[in-house]
Amino acid sequence: MSTELVVATYLVFDAKGDFEKKAEKIAIGLTVGSWTDLPQAQKEQMKKHLGRVISVEEVKDGSAQERSAVIRIGYPTLNFSHDIPALLVTVFGKLSMDGKIKLLDLDFPESFINAFSGPKFGIDGVRELLGVYDRPLLMSIFKSCIGQDLQSLEEQFYQQALGGVDMIKDDEILFENPLTPFEKRLEVGLKAAQRAKEQTGQQVLYAINLTGPTTELLDKAINATKQGATALLFNVLAYGYDALQRITEHPEVRIPVMAHPALAGTIYPATHHGIAASLLLGKLMRLAGADFVLFPSPYGSVAMERGDTLAIADTLRKEWKSERGKLKASFPVPSAGIHPGITPLLHEDFGLQSVMNAGGGIHGHPGGASAGGQAFRQAISILQTSSSFEQEYVKHTELKSAIDMWGLVGRK
Amino acid sequence: MSTELVVATYLVFDAKGDFEKKAEKIAIGLTVGSWTDLPQAQKEQMKKHLGRVISVEEVKDGSAQERSAVIRIGYPTLNFSHDIPALLVTVFGKLSMDGKIKLLDLDFPESFINAFSGPKFGIDGVRELLGVYDRPLLMSIFKSCIGQDLQSLEEQFYQQALGGVDMIKDDEILFENPLTPFEKRLEVGLKAAQRAKEQTGQQVLYAINLTGPTTELLDKAINATKQGATALLFNVLAYGYDALQRITEHPEVRIPVMAHPALAGTIYPATHHGIAASLLLGKLMRLAGADFVLFPSPYGSVAMERGDTLAIADTLRKEWKSERGKLKASFPVPSAGIHPGITPLLHEDFGLQSVMNAGGGIHGHPGGASAGGQAFRQAISILQTSSSFEQEYVKHTELKSAIDMWGLVGRK
Repeated sequence: MSTELVVATYLVFDAKGDFEKKAEKIAIGLTVGSWTDLPQAQKEQMKKHLGRVISVEEVKDGSAQERSAVIRIGYPTLNFSHDIPALLVTVFGKLSMDGKIKLLDLDFPESFINAFSGPKFGIDGVRELLGVYDRPLLMSIFKSCIGQDLQSLEEQFYQQALGGVDMIKDDEILFENPLTPFEKRLEVGLKAAQRAKEQTGQQVLYAINLTGPTTELLDKAINATKQGATALLFNVLAYGYDALQRITEHPEVRIPVMAHPALAGTIYPATHHGIAASLLLGKLMRLAGADFVLFPSPYGSVAMERGDTLAIADTLRKEWKSERGKLKASFPVPSAGIHPGITPLLHEDFGLQSVMNAGGGIHGHPGGASAGGQAFRQAISILQTSSSFEQEYVKHTELKSAIDMWGLVGRK
Repeated sequence: MSTELVVATYLVFDAKGDFEKKAEKIAIGLTVGSWTDLPQAQKEQMKKHLGRVISVEEVKDGSAQERSAVIRIGYPTLNFSHDIPALLVTVFGKLSMDGKIKLLDLDFPESFINAFSGPKFGIDGVRELLGVYDRPLLMSIFKSCIGQDLQSLEEQFYQQALGGVDMIKDDEILFENPLTPFEKRLEVGLKAAQRAKEQTGQQVLYAINLTGPTTELLDKAINATKQGATALLFNVLAYGYDALQRITEHPEVRIPVMAHPALAGTIYPATHHGIAASLLLGKLMRLAGADFVLFPSPYGSVAMERGDTLAIADTLRKEWKSERGKLKASFPVPSAGIHPGITPLLHEDFGLQSVMNAGGGIHGHPGGASAGGQAFRQAISILQTSSSFEQEYVKHTELKSAIDMWGLVGRK
């Protein structure tokens, strides 16, 4: 058996460091511990566990005061169990605390990916659930959840659904509470979806926030499926990727799962530390089975750098094989501060296979949430069919008043 | 009922921002969503859910190019379930991605802390298990784990235990593997501890690495207790604080739990982002029930700023009340690159109620691991009884050869 490797790519900063030496130290220190002083017989035995320096490339960047290098280390998959906690602790557990270093990417051999089911539905499966194939999807978020009662949430749900959205999601800060407990909330959400469907003929998924003790999450997800739930929202980084994986891979959880990026800002934005967004919110979320992944768009109120958002979307959708077949693709959901005037840029960046997701940009419409949804659907329709958004949008009442209100955002 | 608040302290950077306005935006946006446009009747109803700006203080620091402020926001505990994922998602979920902002601290009302059991043993309970009251504890780490078989680990354990250590911990990168699976490893560890005890008369705890699917961790911890395990090691940040809490609070897990800081370096070191070390590795670990918390010492191979390490230790040990009594204190375990020549500084900084923890500083001793442990015990003994370490250490053979090898580290 040849030694298969997971390859980790790091960006290492060091004013006067010897990057080759640093790479060697990582490759040995995080695998077999020591090497040069081992007896020959033990070297033979330990060789298959030894990390490999794949490459060391100093970054040529005149503007930086500090020197940096991109270092790639191969870790034998033999060394750790094939799950995300073991993977991350191996490649960046102790190392994350060792000076200025950022984890940029991880590349896996097919045999490693084989341990993961990935998204159960993926883009194609979600489209089948909805019967919508030829346009980006549209999602809306409750305007406010905290302190609202069941009746208020049901009415909010209904108004949003009337506007033609494909999905409605809970606010990620809505937890178990006496006013709108999970099961009751699910019940009124499903009822409102049904009521709206009788009007619009359109199926609407409800991504209900899965929260509570870690030990109860899986059962709660299974029970929600039994109760007829149509989707789950999950604060992945608050519970760990592995919790997501155990939920998504379970055969009795037969609904798509949406990953919320809450807390991701503690990890991806720093230059010298943390984990790159495309790995944190892209590759690892897909591996753990998220059917949708939310992240800040480049254009809204809470923004992420455009390059990072494109890298996330690319990672979520590109072909990715394991030995047992392809991993399904996940929907990118660029979010936060989205209104109809941003849709041309979103469409240019993220295309057909994405979800447009708005809260205030739907509820704040002068005609209410239903008109807000319609405005988005009109925008999406123009973007799919016409090359001239500026000429077309004025012909649609709801869209025109949205753009009159929020403006049309152009590329800077 | 008066509204009880969890108070979050943030450091916010903004070149030309209005910090008062930013604080208002956080207080409203992360609780009720909107305020000024609400009808009066609804304001009455929502008031108990509304966040409060507690204080806004601009940081006076001439050296910084950028302006910053310490902002304190109170979040009604009514808004979220009383667990760590809900807490963190509420106070820093979306906000962590909103520009340059770091979460420095969280203060809890007693009623909130009441939902947490905290450490089951704590410093006093662990000391009772060991029968050791009058000195810092000593822990050692396996020299290398990966690729070793059971016999090798048993021998390593035995040699370390002979040197007089109180605890031996797995390497955090040792996962389920065919050579040394969890149950077998536990068996040989316990056997070696017993064998050494027959020689030394000393009880040695074995902190075995608890890993695997999130959904199996609690059962594995319960079964380990039944099998006679004496302690658990846990990569908390890879699985989430809540997973730790559900393990430590379970009545059938009757052994102390040690929190490893793996991955913490993705979160605490950046200036403009993340979560301060004293909260990440201090307060939240104790709340979730860690009896011991490892973190990089200020002096070793992987170092943390001294102020941060002291803040962690302080948070782990200071008096902390809930309505049902006091939360037990956790042992600070400053780690990484520790050798006997560092012990005077460690003792000065962390005192009696701490654990000295070494790997290479024990195994690398010229006389082997057993002599390495003895050298530490000699150092600890001097530090507890004598004011002159430099005069005393030369009288102890093992300690002298350790310090001849690694040197005596003084304060810079």
